Amino acid sequence: MSYQTLLGNVDFLESLRGKQANFLLSCAVTKTCEIEGLSQAGIPGNLHLTPTLDAEFVTTGEVRSLPEIASTPSGIPTPALITRAVHELHPFSSIELLDLGMSVKANINYFTTHALEIPSCGNIAQEGSVMDALEVFQKGVEFGQSYTTQAQYTLLAETIPAGTTTANATAQALGYDCKEYFSSSFKNVPRTLRDEVIQKALNKAQTSEDLFTKLSLVSDNMIVFNAGFILGLQSQDHKLILAGGTQMASVLLVVNSVLKTMGGEINSDNLALCTTKWIAQDEHSNIKALLELLDFKVNAYCATFDFSSSQSEVLKLYDKGEAKEGVGAGGALVYGLINGLSTNTIVQKIESYLG
Amino acid sequence: MSYQTLLGNVDFLESLRGKQANFLLSCAVTKTCEIEGLSQAGIPGNLHLTPTLDAEFVTTGEVRSLPEIASTPSGIPTPALITRAVHELHPFSSIELLDLGMSVKANINYFTTHALEIPSCGNIAQEGSVMDALEVFQKGVEFGQSYTTQAQYTLLAETIPAGTTTANATAQALGYDCKEYFSSSFKNVPRTLRDEVIQKALNKAQTSEDLFTKLSLVSDNMIVFNAGFILGLQSQDHKLILAGGTQMASVLLVVNSVLKTMGGEINSDNLALCTTKWIAQDEHSNIKALLELLDFKVNAYCATFDFSSSQSEVLKLYDKGEAKEGVGAGGALVYGLINGLSTNTIVQKIESYLG
Repeated sequence: MSYQTLLGNVDFLESLRGKQANFLLSCAVTKTCEIEGLSQAGIPGNLHLTPTLDAEFVTTGEVRSLPEIASTPSGIPTPALITRAVHELHPFSSIELLDLGMSVKANINYFTTHALEIPSCGNIAQEGSVMDALEVFQKGVEFGQSYTTQAQYTLLAETIPAGTTTANATAQALGYDCKEYFSSSFKNVPRTLRDEVIQKALNKAQTSEDLFTKLSLVSDNMIVFNAGFILGLQSQDHKLILAGGTQMASVLLVVNSVLKTMGGEINSDNLALCTTKWIAQDEHSNIKALLELLDFKVNAYCATFDFSSSQSEVLKLYDKGEAKEGVGAGGALVYGLINGLSTNTIVQKIESYLG
Repeated sequence: MSYQTLLGNVDFLESLRGKQANFLLSCAVTKTCEIEGLSQAGIPGNLHLTPTLDAEFVTTGEVRSLPEIASTPSGIPTPALITRAVHELHPFSSIELLDLGMSVKANINYFTTHALEIPSCGNIAQEGSVMDALEVFQKGVEFGQSYTTQAQYTLLAETIPAGTTTANATAQALGYDCKEYFSSSFKNVPRTLRDEVIQKALNKAQTSEDLFTKLSLVSDNMIVFNAGFILGLQSQDHKLILAGGTQMASVLLVVNSVLKTMGGEINSDNLALCTTKWIAQDEHSNIKALLELLDFKVNAYCATFDFSSSQSEVLKLYDKGEAKEGVGAGGALVYGLINGLSTNTIVQKIESYLG
């Protein structure tokens, strides 16, 4: 089998075999990424450019806002390569960008970019996120209500450096007991630093009882907007796959808290999460436990894809636990695999980008 | 070439290269299957479950209503494996079930099941089919008239144990001289038993001159409904491939008789039949001769696919004449082959299910 079921059963995904998906890439920046050593999702000193470069590479196969593709200091290339490979081998019906506060716009034409007029978030350990979470959430709801696509379902992905830190802070600020469940782009998670950052954020969040005030202090635009998007989309009969790991789980935890606070309900039949095997099998995080904190059921799957057949040492770092997920890699892999692509074909395409 | 033309020319099929098909699986039960030794399409004593298990396996890759996949007493696995393999390698746009009197509903979610509220048929050698053939036919016509799909054409398949016996009885009851033209799931057809069953059915049918009364006594829901479906679909410009062997030929013979009785005409340009090589080359039946009994022309093809490259002894039984066709295997193979799949790729995928 080309994927594994983490929660629920295969039916949701099997019913999508052969159908085309729209790929939405949420591009956001939190200045939390400027904390040295916290994230390796990009080029040190230029992490705020990662969403821009990822968006350029996934859509066009080229990076334009820097001379070369974002890779970690240890040379691990961005998971955007995985998503791009699938798109070249079995294309999405289209790729659309959600500009959720990019610091530099992607230098591309012809692709739909939803300019949502949301500024980048601040550093959660210093000034705080400085976001108007209620407004961002409402923009998400409106986007979901008016969302149209010719595709039969949608993959929702993200690129936001330091996003696992804000995702972790968000869930803890909302009262979930999940400190150890969150992933990191590092194999060796910088626990002390990360815990310090999150603790500073949580101290801020404690100053208020209000859900959206807490989110305004410690969360990020990707999480809050997409929580709104999911709820707005309830007005339509359209299947949505959250293509991501623990950050997407945090989006669902926000949905859960909003529903509890507002007394609402969700029909989650049209909702699933797809991630990578590297997240599903990660010893330092627990995606399944995060999803089990929800008061509603959600189908979850991981692609049984790895780089064991590759000769590339940098790609094999994924198998050792570096990078793991991002730019919708897990969802893209599942999309390719349920549409007849083989692991080897995808590996070879990714290798071709490394030159 | 990946297929062979039995009637007509290649143009119909060639015009469908690269297009996506919807796969409709007609699931029906005739209690005729309870006659011991008549059919080997399933697990003895549980043949009425075969459509349920086939539907579960083709849609999800899992069997749920029994602990293991239906295979004949000699261990030949259901042709559902062939159809599933093609769907994994080059998916249909979707799979939809036609519930034409299943005894147990398929345990699946998310897939469209058309609940047509038609009871299972009786044993044609005892109580008779006990069906309201006119009503079933009219339901088929209505279904065809209102049928919608996003796909560019449709494959219509069947799973009904003992279906070749009812198909044979149907055609003979309508006066076609075709006793020796019908296939069987056995290599060594239980001729005496089958002939006895059919003779009992024909004796019943002789009691009436009326077409639909005859069908009500000796036919099955799959045949009668789909004859209506084909005629209902005449109101639309949509290509339909009958994915099956002599049972699908019997559907066309019913169409032919209805047209003769009612003085109608059919434009069969949008119609073809696709079957397996095992049916096309079968020495004990004659699909081509059956189709030549029609007053209209129909394109017919067979997939040039066999298990000669396989190491599996049970799969090789197909090449020796067991099982032969069903669950749309022939049509699915043609679909895969005109979309770039190789015989070897399909064989390997099927072998992967045998563990």
